[in-house]
Formats: sequence, structure tokens, C-alpha cells
Amino acid sequence: MNYQKYKPYKKIKKVNRKWPDNEITKAPIWCSVDLRDGNQALETPMNLEQKINFFNYLVKLGFKEIEVGFPAASDTEYTFTRTLIDNHMIPKDVTIQVLTQLRTHILDRTFASLEGVHKAIVHLYNSVSTIQRDVVFRKSKEEIKALAVDGARQAKKLAKKYGEERFIFEYSPESFPGAEVDYVVEVCNAVLDELKPASENKVIINLPNTVELCTANVFADLVEYICENLKYRENVIVSLHSHNDRGTGIAASELGLMAGADRIEGTLFGNGERTGNMDIVNFALNLLTQGVDPKLNFSDMDEMIKVYEESTKMSIHPRHPYAGKLVFTAFSGSHQDAINKGMAHMEKENLDYWDVPYLPIDPKDVGRNYDAIIRINSQSGKGGVSYILKTHYDLHLPKAMQQDFGPIITQISDQASKELTPKEIYEAFISEYVNIESPLQLINYVEQVDDNHQSTVRANLISEGEKVAISGHGNGVIDAFCKGLSDLVEQKIDIASYSEHALENGSTSKAITYIQIHTEQGDYSYGSGISPSVTRSSLQAIVSATNRVLKKVVVMQ
Amino acid sequence: MNYQKYKPYKKIKKVNRKWPDNEITKAPIWCSVDLRDGNQALETPMNLEQKINFFNYLVKLGFKEIEVGFPAASDTEYTFTRTLIDNHMIPKDVTIQVLTQLRTHILDRTFASLEGVHKAIVHLYNSVSTIQRDVVFRKSKEEIKALAVDGARQAKKLAKKYGEERFIFEYSPESFPGAEVDYVVEVCNAVLDELKPASENKVIINLPNTVELCTANVFADLVEYICENLKYRENVIVSLHSHNDRGTGIAASELGLMAGADRIEGTLFGNGERTGNMDIVNFALNLLTQGVDPKLNFSDMDEMIKVYEESTKMSIHPRHPYAGKLVFTAFSGSHQDAINKGMAHMEKENLDYWDVPYLPIDPKDVGRNYDAIIRINSQSGKGGVSYILKTHYDLHLPKAMQQDFGPIITQISDQASKELTPKEIYEAFISEYVNIESPLQLINYVEQVDDNHQSTVRANLISEGEKVAISGHGNGVIDAFCKGLSDLVEQKIDIASYSEHALENGSTSKAITYIQIHTEQGDYSYGSGISPSVTRSSLQAIVSATNRVLKKVVVMQ
Repeated sequence: MNYQKYKPYKKIKKVNRKWPDNEITKAPIWCSVDLRDGNQALETPMNLEQKINFFNYLVKLGFKEIEVGFPAASDTEYTFTRTLIDNHMIPKDVTIQVLTQLRTHILDRTFASLEGVHKAIVHLYNSVSTIQRDVVFRKSKEEIKALAVDGARQAKKLAKKYGEERFIFEYSPESFPGAEVDYVVEVCNAVLDELKPASENKVIINLPNTVELCTANVFADLVEYICENLKYRENVIVSLHSHNDRGTGIAASELGLMAGADRIEGTLFGNGERTGNMDIVNFALNLLTQGVDPKLNFSDMDEMIKVYEESTKMSIHPRHPYAGKLVFTAFSGSHQDAINKGMAHMEKENLDYWDVPYLPIDPKDVGRNYDAIIRINSQSGKGGVSYILKTHYDLHLPKAMQQDFGPIITQISDQASKELTPKEIYEAFISEYVNIESPLQLINYVEQVDDNHQSTVRANLISEGEKVAISGHGNGVIDAFCKGLSDLVEQKIDIASYSEHALENGSTSKAITYIQIHTEQGDYSYGSGISPSVTRSSLQAIVSATNRVLKKVVVMQ
Repeated sequence: MNYQKYKPYKKIKKVNRKWPDNEITKAPIWCSVDLRDGNQALETPMNLEQKINFFNYLVKLGFKEIEVGFPAASDTEYTFTRTLIDNHMIPKDVTIQVLTQLRTHILDRTFASLEGVHKAIVHLYNSVSTIQRDVVFRKSKEEIKALAVDGARQAKKLAKKYGEERFIFEYSPESFPGAEVDYVVEVCNAVLDELKPASENKVIINLPNTVELCTANVFADLVEYICENLKYRENVIVSLHSHNDRGTGIAASELGLMAGADRIEGTLFGNGERTGNMDIVNFALNLLTQGVDPKLNFSDMDEMIKVYEESTKMSIHPRHPYAGKLVFTAFSGSHQDAINKGMAHMEKENLDYWDVPYLPIDPKDVGRNYDAIIRINSQSGKGGVSYILKTHYDLHLPKAMQQDFGPIITQISDQASKELTPKEIYEAFISEYVNIESPLQLINYVEQVDDNHQSTVRANLISEGEKVAISGHGNGVIDAFCKGLSDLVEQKIDIASYSEHALENGSTSKAITYIQIHTEQGDYSYGSGISPSVTRSSLQAIVSATNRVLKKVVVMQ
């Protein structure tokens, strides 16, 4: 490929690097830019009604800072800002934010859009990267800095006019990773000199990773360096605004937060120009998995997706972290086995923390259930199959029987070349093991127990169309029945394993018995019986297992 | 949210950390795991024919190591491996890789699937994490280590049987970030003692970030620590296999490579269990943008997407880095303006390197064109609109006219609440500016030039349904025509700016003239004329501009 035409990013030489030893122990200040940076990247931007609905939803999710638009850029955005203010739609604890360039008439219109607001962040920006200075604006470093400083001064003056206490300033040196880092610091400090941050009047310096140009660690170095060299640092809120061109927007923001930032701008599910903005849902749930309160309520993922998809006309990819329909799903046998055991362990030990292999988060914490965590195709194994039978049909297969049934399902799915539904798996189980009535069919039986607690069983069966009677005597009904059956099939049948449980299916309770028999000729075979009578379910299971041996012999002959 | 139920990841205390100062200056050894880890995560895994096609395509893209399956796990995977070998479908410079657990019968079947292969990587794995040891396998650290060592020994023995020179070993301590790092080192070293790496017989130690549990820097610390403590390091190839549960799979792999790894496993577009495996396309193109040869040919993105979507039945999200249909698109006015200027700069200066704002990669380098880089909706501005008119219709609007036309398009798109196509923009331009024939319509004209190079123009127009004749005398045809027109409309009309170029649309060449007039009453107005005659296009432009003033006056009255 044509790699020679690209120049490597010139990283700074960071000394005394601290961020790799830091950890994120609390949520940053969040700012949603869905209505601005996200909205501008849609094929069809939201209309007024959609913007209002989305704004209300962001408030519901817990956002306290929301960038609502670029009011000077279009009538829709101006009207939207006015609508929020005029109709008192902004809760007292929520601050709206508007983006503005630094030209006089744009600043004028921006402040006009905010008249009467209780509190707003005025977000000033200009591009500072070398390419933008040289090619887009054709201005020197000094001229670009002067543009920022003059804009800040004008904005400050306008704020006085409209009520200084109503406004917080934010300044973004747009495309800053494309500029010399000392120049970025110089411009930010010059703007801060103008805006005069104070403890009761903090200023936000937002560092926009406008286009990702470097690896996440190099970005973190930049953030740390700038944080170390900003004036008024204690009264400056350092904010990050990352995009995802290199697919590392989350990592850049996480590492940038370790490097000293206090605030994160982003969008739900990473909507935004090109590859999108940083995904706040992803970031916040990463925090959750580390035991950090995300300070946002993302517990109803399906509702979030619905609002998002309706508003943006975008969709969520099946593998989107925490949100996609496949992200809590294991198809692979070994994964399923581990999840199955992990879930059982959680339940049995009644653990108060989450620790299940292959599931970094409890799907229930984002409003999903466990239906999707195991799905069955040809890559799946016994663990997954038994999980499905247990959770969907309350069938608790003994371990050895799971091993017997697993390959049967793999073969069915492999041949059909498709995923199997829980119903298909259940039906395959029933038809393979339960109440198998050919070649032998159990009709009825009588059990007599003598005063030595020994049983005698007399049973009628149909064999090859004819009624046959068997009888046996032994240590309980199963033993006795096996003896009778052994006589009929002319080889000794022993019980190798046995388990039984009640079934809660439907109005009448039934029992299911799982039995493994061992024949004189060395066959092991599983069978199951379902019946309202526990005893009958056991005898049916023995007949089922026996029939499976007899059929196999026929097939092999 | 229920954050208290999650425990923070216990990071290691890394001393003498080196990776943040490293840079990636060459491509890693790539290994595609599409046919295994990717395939097992599909609702419908690929069938034999699809696997063969995908394998051939991976070879075409330049992969030299390809994990083809887990042959002992299903008939399809066994048959696929045998098909590749028996039909000599593996090029000499390509090494296939197969995954296997460490149990005897599975190893036996794995080696049987490889009989006769010219070269294969046998990929041994077992889980080493605390949760898997305690809950899934119920084995001690020693027992899990013994399992790995015994498996390696058996594998080594089988390799001898099938031809030792044919096999390379890879060992994965699965879920290793969930284990104590010193234990991971201990197990890997014990396995290496068994496999005996040598310069002519290197062994791959693959570090699977099976489930992302920590930030990318913490993962890099783990990788660096393990690299520092592996025995036989010079004969060990350290490989990374990252997933994307925290949305940081790319970053973890990039930082892990800086931390000492040599090899990367991943899939095209990040297919794989849950949130997917690390996306090799994304990683490789990140390298490209840094001037590093990715050693894979991803120059036909659309073909890649087609093969991928057909094989996996998955789709590519519109914001997927480098691949999505929106990732080279700017809707925002300021972005469009910058792209427009950046593209013009590249062309004018004939630059041999890529440097365009908001486009980290030249779309042509992945086989895309420039059609999508600017699309127009209500968020767009003059720069984008003029780019569209230039690239799609060869109309080179002067800057002042761009500023006049931009807001007109914003308003149309805002009101229609939709994206505008290039054709709609062109039609809006034509109907707003070009050959406007009301209230005045130019019929014909005669120009006479005297020996002092002064022009006299006599023209016939229709005004309010009636034919009118005008005449003027001046310094060239435009000046003369303006004088005549000034008499007719009873106010002085001056030319404020003028430009003209040929149009290459269709078979007959035409000229387009862009004119800005300035009236005595202080109006500035733009107009355009298109005609096979350059002179006529100019006069039509003057009439168009004049008509736009006259109409505005009518509207305002």
C-alpha cells in the first residue's frame, strides 16, 4: 500500500510521566455533545421536536451539562436554544452549552440566543493546528492566537451585557494534536489571561482530539504536558473531546483522564462526525465494571437504543460494547461451559459481586436478561446446551448425559448449518431420550412391597406389536423392573446412574427421571421418562434407555 | 447504577516502564483468526465452501499465518483442514494454524487433521485465570500448570510422530489478565521448558486478552512484564490476541506491541465473540497513516467489505474506522471548508504526502473516491457547497459568491430537513443565479468597437412583456452594456467583480460568467450567465444579477 505518503506523528518527549501509574477512581464531569457534534454528522439532522425529546432524555439519563447546538449557525439551532430557555425546559441543575466561533457577528448572535438563560457554558473555539493555520486560515501563529484572545475578550464583554453570573466559558484549541504543544499551551494561557478564571468562576479548557492522529498513550502525554503547564490550573477544568478515527477514542479519553483531565465530552453510542465522537455509554460502563459510580443511569439499554435509533436514524452494531445484541452471547462450547459454571457458582454461593467468565458485566445491570448469553450452533458444546435446557425448560441434565447429548446437537447444527433455537434443542432432547416407545412400550405395572421391603413388579409391555408380561423381584421398584426387563431382552440390565426432579411445566406437576443403564454386553445408554407419577417416570426412563440400545443394535446389524 | 457489585482490576506495580517511550516502526507478524475465533461467533458459522473462499481471500490480502479452525471440535473444521492439505490449497509461504485443547484424544485428532501439512502452527491453550481455575476446572495452580506442561509434552511427542519439522508451537495462557502475572510467567516458562524454543524452532507465546478487564496501559504493563520475564526470550515470538469488551482492543494491541510483542492475532473488521476480536484492518491502516508499511493489502475496501459481509452475514457500521460509509464524510460547514482548502492545497502544491484537515487517510488509498467526502445538509456551509459544485459540475464559484450561496442552501436543507444531493444543489444554483430572465430578458445585441478600442453596444430586451432597446458606450462590451442597462432601470449599475471559465459539460463547450454588480442604491447582487458565447454569458450574468435586485425590490415593497 501507499504508506510512503504518510508522515509519522511527531510525539513529544514527555519527561516525568505520571499518568501510567494513575487510576480512574471517580467519574469525570460528563458533557453530552449529541445535539451538536453528534447531530451535525447525521444524514438528516434532528428537527426541533426530535431535539427537544433527545434533550429531555439526556436529562433523564443524568447529564448535567449538555451542548445543545451552534445557535449562530442555523435557524433550527437558534430556535431550539430559544425554545429551551423561553419554555423553561432546562432543569435548575442542568447547564446548557453552546458552541460558537469567535467572529463578532457570530458571538453577538450566540449571546442573543442565550438571553435569559439561568446558566450556560459558552464554548469558544478556533483551530490551532499547523495545517489549518497555513492552509485554511492563512494566518501566523500570532494571528491565530490574537483571534482567540480577541474572541475571548469580546465574549467576556457580551457576558457582562447579558449578566456575567449566567455564563461559564469553555475554550477549545481545535485540532490541538496537530499543533506544537507549547503553542497550544501559549494560546490557552493567553485566553485564560483574558477570561480570568477564579474559584467561583472556573473556566473549561477543552482539548479536542478532533481527528485522532496518534496512539492513545501519546495523546495522554499531550494532556499531561498541557495540564502541567496551564496557568490558573486550580481554577481550570480540563476537558477532553475525543474522536475515533484510529478506533481508540475510548482509550485516549481513559488515558487522558489519568493524565489529569476532569471532564469528558462525548455522545451516546459514539455518534459524531466520520468515525464518531467518544462513546459515553462505553466509557461510563467501563467505569461501572471497575466499581466506580458512573453518575449516569444507563440501566435501560434497550430504551436508550430505541431513543437513539429513532432520533438519529443510526443503528447499533451487534458487537457494540455493552449495547450490541451479540455482546453478551457465547456460541463457543468452552465459553458456554465456563459461563454455565460461573452462573451456577454465583447462584450457589450467593455472591454479592459479579464474577462470571466471559461476561465482564451482568447483562441485568443494563436491563437485559440472560436469554441471549448462550446460543447454540455447531460451535457450541454440552455446557451451553445444558444451560439452555435448564434455563428455558427447567431440565437439569446430569453431567454424563450432557456429554452424551452435546455432540448430538453439534451434529444437528453442523448439518443444518444454522443456529438452533431453545425449542429446537428441547425437541431434539425429547425425541432422542424421553418416553421412547419402540421397540418396547410400557403399558402398565403393579408393584407389591413385602414386609422385608422387597419389591415385586409385574408389568405389561408391547414388543413388536404383541403384548408381553414381565415380572421381577428386587430391592425396590427399579431393581425389580430391571430384572423383569433383563429376562425379556435376554441380557442383564443394570442402572449406572439415576436422577430425578419435578417439572414445573404447565398446571400439573410432573417428574422427569434421567437414567443411565449398563448392559451385559457393555453398552452404556441414557434414557428419560416424564410422567405425573415418579415411579412411572423412572420405569419409562429405563425403557427409553433400553430401547436406545436395542435400536442401535438394529442399526449396526 | 449497581456499581458496588464490581471489583476494580488489580493492576500490577510496573517498575522501569519502557513502553510509553517506544514507537511502532514496523508491522507485526499478522495472524488472521477469522476462520476460528471469528467464525465461532457467527449466528451461522461458515460452511466448507465459504471457509475455502474466505481462506483464499485472506491469502490474497497477504496473510502469511491463518488460524483455520479447531479441527478436533467439529466435523466441518476437521474436514476443512483436511481439504486444504489434501488439495494443496495452502501456498508455500503461508502457514496454517489450528487451535487445540490439551486433552489426549483432542491432541490426537488435531495432529491427525494436520497429517502431511508442509508447515502448521499447533496452538495449544488452557485457561489460567483464577475464576476459571476455581469455578470451571476446580484445579489448583499446580494442577493447571501441570495440565499445560503435560499437554505440551504430548504435543511435542505427536509432532515427532508426524514430522517434527512441520510444526511450530504456540501456547496461550487463556484469560491471562485474570490470573496473577507471576503465575502466568511461571506457566509459560514451564511450557517453554517442555517445547524447548531454539533459533531454528521458535515458539509463540500468545497473550490472549480474552475478556478486556483493564485499561490499555495496564494491559501494556502486563505484556512488558511478561516479556521481561520469559525464558528463551530471543527464541520466543510474543503474540497478542485482544478482544474488545471495553472498546479498547485496538489501543491495547498497539500499546502491547510497544511493550514488546512481535505478533498480532485478529480478524477483519473485528469479527469475533461478543464485542469481537481486535480489528486487523483498523490496526494495519493506523500503521499506514504513520508511514509504516502494513504488509497487508487493504487497498480495495469495498471488495473486502463484500467478501466479509457475504461470508459472515455481519455488516459494517457506517462509522467503522476506515471502512464505514460515513467515515470520510463531512457534513459540517467548517470541516467542509477546511477539506475544500486542504484538497485544493494538495493539488496546487502537488504535495507528495497526505495532509488534509479532517481526513486522516486519503480515501483513494483504500479504493474509495472523493464523492462522499463532502455531503450537504443544514449543518453544511459555503465551503462544502462550492466543493460539490466544483467536483460534480466543474463550477468554480468566486469566494464572495460562495458566501452568498451558502446560506441559501442551508435554508433549503433546514426547511426540507434532509440532506441535499449534488444535483439538488446544482439545480438550486441554476435557478437562483443563472440566466435569470425576469423581469428583464436579453434577446440579442450588437457590439461595435472603434479605433480607440471603445465599445458601443446596442441590445434588445423584453421588459414586462414589451421589447425595449438599450444602447451604451464604454470601455469594453461589459462597461457599455452596463451603461445602457443603467438607463433602462434608472439607476447606475457597476461591476464589482467578474470571473469566467469554460464549462466541460456535454459535447459543446460553453462559458459561464459570475458577476457581482453594485447598484447606485447600494445593493450588491450576484448573477451568472451560461452561453456558448463568452460575451453573451457575461451580458446574461449582468442581466441575471440586475433581475435579482429588481425582484428583491418588488418583494420588499
